[in-house]
Amino acid sequence: MALLASARGEDAKKPATLDGLTALLKADLERVNGVILERMQSPVALIPQLAGHIIAAGGKRLRPMLTLATARLCGYHGERHVALAAAVEFIHTATLLHDDVVDASDLRRGLATANAVWGNKSSVLVGDFLFSRAFQLMVEDGSLKVLAILSEASAVIAEGEVLQLVTSNDIETTEEAYLAVIAAKTAQLFTAASRLGAVLADRPEAEEEALAAYGRNLGTAFQLVDDMLDYSARQVELGKTVGDDFREGKITLPVVLALRQASEPERAFWRRTLEQLDQQDDDLGRAIELMTRYGTLRATLDRARHYGEAARRSLALFRDGAERRALEEAIDFCLARGY
Amino acid sequence: MALLASARGEDAKKPATLDGLTALLKADLERVNGVILERMQSPVALIPQLAGHIIAAGGKRLRPMLTLATARLCGYHGERHVALAAAVEFIHTATLLHDDVVDASDLRRGLATANAVWGNKSSVLVGDFLFSRAFQLMVEDGSLKVLAILSEASAVIAEGEVLQLVTSNDIETTEEAYLAVIAAKTAQLFTAASRLGAVLADRPEAEEEALAAYGRNLGTAFQLVDDMLDYSARQVELGKTVGDDFREGKITLPVVLALRQASEPERAFWRRTLEQLDQQDDDLGRAIELMTRYGTLRATLDRARHYGEAARRSLALFRDGAERRALEEAIDFCLARGY
Repeated sequence: MALLASARGEDAKKPATLDGLTALLKADLERVNGVILERMQSPVALIPQLAGHIIAAGGKRLRPMLTLATARLCGYHGERHVALAAAVEFIHTATLLHDDVVDASDLRRGLATANAVWGNKSSVLVGDFLFSRAFQLMVEDGSLKVLAILSEASAVIAEGEVLQLVTSNDIETTEEAYLAVIAAKTAQLFTAASRLGAVLADRPEAEEEALAAYGRNLGTAFQLVDDMLDYSARQVELGKTVGDDFREGKITLPVVLALRQASEPERAFWRRTLEQLDQQDDDLGRAIELMTRYGTLRATLDRARHYGEAARRSLALFRDGAERRALEEAIDFCLARGY
Repeated sequence: MALLASARGEDAKKPATLDGLTALLKADLERVNGVILERMQSPVALIPQLAGHIIAAGGKRLRPMLTLATARLCGYHGERHVALAAAVEFIHTATLLHDDVVDASDLRRGLATANAVWGNKSSVLVGDFLFSRAFQLMVEDGSLKVLAILSEASAVIAEGEVLQLVTSNDIETTEEAYLAVIAAKTAQLFTAASRLGAVLADRPEAEEEALAAYGRNLGTAFQLVDDMLDYSARQVELGKTVGDDFREGKITLPVVLALRQASEPERAFWRRTLEQLDQQDDDLGRAIELMTRYGTLRATLDRARHYGEAARRSLALFRDGAERRALEEAIDFCLARGY
């Protein structure tokens, strides 16, 4: 507890916002939003309606900002980063829409998402449209290297999402399998988005790799914090619901670590709630209590900090300045959400 | 009835198979299947399982054969057509998987598809994987022109699918709106697949346009016959169920044309069955009876023949030979399914 308070105090000194990044990139971001707005149009009215809803709700534009900021960090002075940042956001939005698709079993538990308004089919098809638009933007850009990076990322994201589906409701899921899921479904797009900066500026392979490592570690930290927050009161302060992963039976790191130390009756509890999805009102409370007892939320956050530090080290190759500081602040922002 | 019998007799003389095409392309087709099998692999076992199921069931490989045959027609002697034909089939398969996704309302009516085995989420995510793989194959091919053609096609297909969703259950849907749906959701990929032959062989724009017109008209004819068959006893002979579109409330041309001539009670019938999806056991029989009375199945087939003839005329630009004859047979095959 003392440790937790001290950690909180230490982090409170750091900026917990993306303000540095958004201020630095304000003009570029407005142009990215312009491209997004323009290219999500279609004579089929439902497409801009649904896409507009989710793109507006998406909000912070973290992934496209990585492309914009790394391009500046690498001294890029052209125009291509704007359309490619929009392509990155379209891929992210398509993934969100497809993540929204639910099976009959989920519907019985009454989940409420954009899906609840427009239905599965609309979410899938508008996602497909945005995904195709992303590729059109890349084709217009004309770089086969960029196309290779983002088509590879898309395939890996899909693999990660399928792997997550397969490990859901399976309490035997290992920490390695969990890390493989988040490396693919989350960190891959952070990696690609950050790598693009060096590619655009035609920088040496070492800088490309350093920015890819920054994105990969930042994305991993981001997802670890996200998975921790799903069981944290902090999530309520952020205006989101707690326990979504629990209700879906997703096996995230706080659960994996709690299972590692579980007694036989605790194991039976996890099996009933997450494998069989047989959940009662106070089960989420009991889950959080077990995670607190074994310190697994704290341990998840510790791992996130470890990845955050690795992301920070990856930036050492680059000159100090506003861009690098803004990218460092993005790490702090991702971690600070957890405190 | 005499007319129908005569039409059948006339068409019976023409080959009603794709044998000419498959014989001509045998070696290439085996290589395409090799690429498909190789590139649908993933360490995530569910992906090749589900993809293998739908790709094996897909069967006739009509779209990739268009790329292979038009490439030969244009005198192309390279290797690129194989991987690009596989990319075309992956895009088609992804579309099939995403078409499989159902909403809660469909589930209540108990539809049975691949979805019934693996669920919505798996269909979506494996579709995304195949779609990404298609783009990776194109990027490896390295032609921005090919990438532009197929990314544009993908966006248009998604638009067409959304438009179909919007017009479903709306008995005010016009023939124009129906034709816009099938031009986008079906004919666009036939168009792109056929155009690729001329692009690969670096033939003049006129030949590219002629092959695109061939594909567009063939695809339109194909979909018209498909929509007619959904209300035809012929469909039962082909081993498929009748009335799928009716149960989903899809507004296809046989319905549009029947509505145009409908009495007030008949209009009420269509509204109840297709808009409100309030259907009883003998409603499908009554729908077929109305279509037969107004000759709308026959009229749909007539339009298909019209598009088939347009497809045939588009080939006039090319030298006569085995490739052209095989592409003409493909038209006969698409039409003959209707008799």
